[in-house]
Amino acid sequence: MRVVLAVGTTETATIDGISAAGADAEAMVHTPSADAEIVAYGEPIRAPVVPVSPTGTPTPALVTRAVRDLVEFDLTVVDAGLAEPTGAPTVTVGARPGGDVRDEDPVATAHGAFEAARQFGRALPDDAIYLGESIPGGTTTALGVQAALGERGGAGAGVSSSLPENPVERKREVVAEGLAASGLDEGAAAGEPKVALRRMGDPVLAVAAGTALGCLETDTAVTLAGGTQLATVAALLRHAGVDGTLELATTSFVAADPSVDLDAVADSLDLSVTVTDPAFDEGDHPAFDGYLAGEAKEGVAMGGALALARAAGVPMADVRDRVLARYRSLPDLS
Amino acid sequence: MRVVLAVGTTETATIDGISAAGADAEAMVHTPSADAEIVAYGEPIRAPVVPVSPTGTPTPALVTRAVRDLVEFDLTVVDAGLAEPTGAPTVTVGARPGGDVRDEDPVATAHGAFEAARQFGRALPDDAIYLGESIPGGTTTALGVQAALGERGGAGAGVSSSLPENPVERKREVVAEGLAASGLDEGAAAGEPKVALRRMGDPVLAVAAGTALGCLETDTAVTLAGGTQLATVAALLRHAGVDGTLELATTSFVAADPSVDLDAVADSLDLSVTVTDPAFDEGDHPAFDGYLAGEAKEGVAMGGALALARAAGVPMADVRDRVLARYRSLPDLS
Repeated sequence: MRVVLAVGTTETATIDGISAAGADAEAMVHTPSADAEIVAYGEPIRAPVVPVSPTGTPTPALVTRAVRDLVEFDLTVVDAGLAEPTGAPTVTVGARPGGDVRDEDPVATAHGAFEAARQFGRALPDDAIYLGESIPGGTTTALGVQAALGERGGAGAGVSSSLPENPVERKREVVAEGLAASGLDEGAAAGEPKVALRRMGDPVLAVAAGTALGCLETDTAVTLAGGTQLATVAALLRHAGVDGTLELATTSFVAADPSVDLDAVADSLDLSVTVTDPAFDEGDHPAFDGYLAGEAKEGVAMGGALALARAAGVPMADVRDRVLARYRSLPDLS
Repeated sequence: MRVVLAVGTTETATIDGISAAGADAEAMVHTPSADAEIVAYGEPIRAPVVPVSPTGTPTPALVTRAVRDLVEFDLTVVDAGLAEPTGAPTVTVGARPGGDVRDEDPVATAHGAFEAARQFGRALPDDAIYLGESIPGGTTTALGVQAALGERGGAGAGVSSSLPENPVERKREVVAEGLAASGLDEGAAAGEPKVALRRMGDPVLAVAAGTALGCLETDTAVTLAGGTQLATVAALLRHAGVDGTLELATTSFVAADPSVDLDAVADSLDLSVTVTDPAFDEGDHPAFDGYLAGEAKEGVAMGGALALARAAGVPMADVRDRVLARYRSLPDLS
């Protein structure tokens, strides 16, 4: 099995109160680079941070890596607009860091990166892949794409958050500002996924949607491994003309998020949803407490990795033990 | 286990009659990109060629990939001066394609790439790695480095070849021309490995030597997985002050090469050499014939991969079967 991770950044993430994908704004720009390294090597090797939330909750990359220790899978990281170097090997598709979604044209590379990622997806010889992401502020740009596509008013509306209290109103303001700056009404980019990505999205959504489209065009099965950002990838695929049920694998934390009706999202977008609960409540360790309080919830293909572990018959207690072993061996966190 | 591959190109490879690492000069520039993709995905996905020698012998990458199917290992490809895009994920260390070794300053990025690779090697958390290469024309630049270091006259002298008839005289002429252009006498760069790399080497040797040095400095064991190019990496490490026995794993084809005295090389550089014979003579298939006639011999960590297979108890018949299965499924070769 191959897990493909699209990792990148935007200036949207630096808007106050939007994201918990880093201890602070300065650390956050390193989060996707560090996440990729953690899945590739078990720890950051070039990035100068271990990604944690402001309260110290460790990145979901740690969970994905722990699963990789137990259920071997190939890893392919795609540079979807990294702003800082990573020591993880990456595939290049021409993506650049995204701007601020409140500007007119925040993702100028969206078209090119989408098409290059589509070619990459078409060329992948695998029977099946899991597709995940790491991008701080990604639920805000996902909301922006939903708005541009006209999906926000439908049953599939809404996005989750890496914060326990989803700053929904703040995200809506940001998106409204972005639509105005881009000269778009809600739904103005329906049927035009690349326009939605360029004007209201981020480079990770562009690369993930392009990769998924290319895979599906060449009979590589795709499991969207994540929460509402990956559900937004599903919406983009619908607007690109993709029919048929799509697979989404996410965590119990997203399923339990009161700001998202996952069943309605699944109905609206014809998603077959796999929810996996790592039972962190049985873990009895501070590293798990943030997740139980609603922090992080998803990211770095965590839900997909947990699904792979369960499918392989690995007990969740073993996954938790590996997470803690990995956690204890991290620099600065031990 | 992690296999690290340094892959890159030089203009030296385009000198007539130097290399068989490609069907022709136009195809050769794609060989390292394609080799990385074959080990990563099983086939080229972005590179427009399947690397074969002019007589059709398939690249050693196919053998390394076949072993990877049987003995799982992590793969990390380092971009050591690729001139054409690859779909394989790569780590960036600032290397650029090398020039023609007959010019004064063919590897201007040697110092920077060596040091960045050293930092990468220092940061790798692995207990042990295997280190291989793919670079057409690489034995000629290896000979150039040996000359600059003053190793050419010693017992460790000489390089192998991807051609059955090693064009030793042609290589010596090229190296003599390079020394003159660089204003270096033989041995003028003794104790200065980065000078030897910059004036007479290639970016793959720079990245491989830097990576190995960084690993050894931080107690990550290194097996040099290859033939005389990797032995030249060992020489560079000696000139960088590395003591203690170094491990080299290569193929029986290099061991049988009449143009190299592998035992003398091992004595001279204090190498512990593991030679693995894939018994292609028992394979009874045209894909193996080139190897039996002395083509290719090594590359893309083939000797290291075979050693990993043997250490894991995988019969060489199984390796050969996987090589043929991979060979038959390649585009344009099936």
